[in-house]
Amino acid sequence: MPMTAAWGTTAADLPLSPISIDRRALRDEDVAIAITHCGVCHSDLHASRNDWGGTKYPFVPGHEIVGTVKAVGPAVTRFAVGDKVAIGTIVDSCRHCDACADDEEQYCREGVTGTYNGKDRIDGSPTYGGYSAEIVVAEPYVLRIPEGLDPGLAAPLLCAGITSYSPLKNWNVGPGSKVGVVGLGGLGHMGVKFAKALGAEVTMITTSPEKGADAQALGADHVLISTDKDAMKAARRSFDFLLDTIPVAHDVTPYLLLLDRQGTLCIVGAIDMMPSFHSGLLLGGQKAVAGSGVGGIAQTQEMLDLCAERGILPECEMIRMDEINHAFERMEKGDVKYRFVIDMATIGQ
Amino acid sequence: MPMTAAWGTTAADLPLSPISIDRRALRDEDVAIAITHCGVCHSDLHASRNDWGGTKYPFVPGHEIVGTVKAVGPAVTRFAVGDKVAIGTIVDSCRHCDACADDEEQYCREGVTGTYNGKDRIDGSPTYGGYSAEIVVAEPYVLRIPEGLDPGLAAPLLCAGITSYSPLKNWNVGPGSKVGVVGLGGLGHMGVKFAKALGAEVTMITTSPEKGADAQALGADHVLISTDKDAMKAARRSFDFLLDTIPVAHDVTPYLLLLDRQGTLCIVGAIDMMPSFHSGLLLGGQKAVAGSGVGGIAQTQEMLDLCAERGILPECEMIRMDEINHAFERMEKGDVKYRFVIDMATIGQ
Repeated sequence: MPMTAAWGTTAADLPLSPISIDRRALRDEDVAIAITHCGVCHSDLHASRNDWGGTKYPFVPGHEIVGTVKAVGPAVTRFAVGDKVAIGTIVDSCRHCDACADDEEQYCREGVTGTYNGKDRIDGSPTYGGYSAEIVVAEPYVLRIPEGLDPGLAAPLLCAGITSYSPLKNWNVGPGSKVGVVGLGGLGHMGVKFAKALGAEVTMITTSPEKGADAQALGADHVLISTDKDAMKAARRSFDFLLDTIPVAHDVTPYLLLLDRQGTLCIVGAIDMMPSFHSGLLLGGQKAVAGSGVGGIAQTQEMLDLCAERGILPECEMIRMDEINHAFERMEKGDVKYRFVIDMATIGQ
Repeated sequence: MPMTAAWGTTAADLPLSPISIDRRALRDEDVAIAITHCGVCHSDLHASRNDWGGTKYPFVPGHEIVGTVKAVGPAVTRFAVGDKVAIGTIVDSCRHCDACADDEEQYCREGVTGTYNGKDRIDGSPTYGGYSAEIVVAEPYVLRIPEGLDPGLAAPLLCAGITSYSPLKNWNVGPGSKVGVVGLGGLGHMGVKFAKALGAEVTMITTSPEKGADAQALGADHVLISTDKDAMKAARRSFDFLLDTIPVAHDVTPYLLLLDRQGTLCIVGAIDMMPSFHSGLLLGGQKAVAGSGVGGIAQTQEMLDLCAERGILPECEMIRMDEINHAFERMEKGDVKYRFVIDMATIGQ
């Protein structure tokens, strides 16, 4: 396959700009995808700037990828040219460990191959993300965009969506569950939608009355303003599950006080050292502080199917490819409701 | 009822000594119990010395109580004079909240009445623990010592036992579970026995090879020495559940690394501020740090019945009542395998 147009960077302190990348020639089980849309995830920004260390340059971000099948290898059975498909954060794994066998490729014992900043398991070449015109991925890691699901708006489901959906499913949120979603951003707004879709009673927990109102417009049943001491006290021990989407390190103490017995607070946003808290907050009620990342391929497909069936979609702001650096800046300020999606038709313009 | 002989203290800095306490006259639903044995719990020591604040004096410890029914009120239906019975950490609760209705009185929304340092819900009188000749408790909070269970050895089940058993049950430990028990003391040695009884594969995790050997004698399948870096590295991601019985504040990082996906580390020993740890240890595998205290009355009875059926008993060192202050000193040094039990026949001697 020829060189492919992309936007990436060659160093941590440079903005993104047009570059050319190599996409591999089709192997037997490969699906070549013409990318139509790519969501913009906080991880894209962090990885571009090497905030977490380990970024290899040149670097191309993007792991919320939607597109159309352009070609398939001879061993591909589930996809045909023209199909609407998607790629999330994982493009390969060992395929034989217990985690892979259990459809939890994200926890592959040998480590997953990331959609970007990874290394192809066969030829060792670097993987590049979806801020590009095309991508080639092995069939088992390709998802189907179901009939009726808007491909552009679906893009953020591939990371923000599944990161919100997976913990709700894992901790058995359903009818009767009292769920609090802490923070309203890319993850939080999907948390509200999914928790409602699963039948829970949902409260948006936020510092901002304005965000509270926004969350109610998205389906939240109640709003709890976390700076209101009386309201926080009145809400003690009233939640079964808290989806904590705050993106920076924070003290979980005020939220642990909100959990009812056997309740869990699940961190999905902050990847950092956790400030010290008192274990008595856990012992007094068999409570837990948990964490969760993305789900596996099968669970991601399950989520996409649910979204199509129930009309669940992220709230997106479409941007052109050449607006990406400005979008990164706005994202850092929290100035997006709630996810940027790049219209990849603009990459060559 | 007349004054009852007891051992207690009138101030935080005094040792225990003989005192007289008032036990209430029998109410309709009350069971009067002649105490034959009382286990010695770390909480007894902490509460005597007001280590956690809130101790009211005079104070009488003891919440691992076994005895014989001496008299029953007219409304008592399940117990008769001569029955072998037990009292744990709870002697009353509101009896109408959802937690009480769910047999989780320990999480009563109005707060439990503790066996000691509590306040009777009817007349407001202080509650005194089991380092005494007799106790009077309302029938719903009285447990039955099943036929075949040694009453003296059973005493530590009422706190150390149920505190180990309850989290194993709550987190569904059973055949196929890979369980690590961290620390070998009053709680840890029962954790090993219960996890084995529930069908798990059990590893003792300890700094001490000697304790490892002791744990294997108690039924542990494997030993992991936590100061052996290579062994700890080789054991990464191999446990479904860790029962953390370390009694003091400690960094959970080395143990979180041992958890497999969806695994839980449950703290039952350390009631203190938890040193900071990295949330990535939880996010990378939907893992959790949880805590757990005692179980409810029904679960405690279930545990006692299981112990009788399977011959599960704590390892105890019997002491005389007048040896209690020395026993406290030895307990502080960890010099007990694994629980002291006071032979209450010695209280008047």
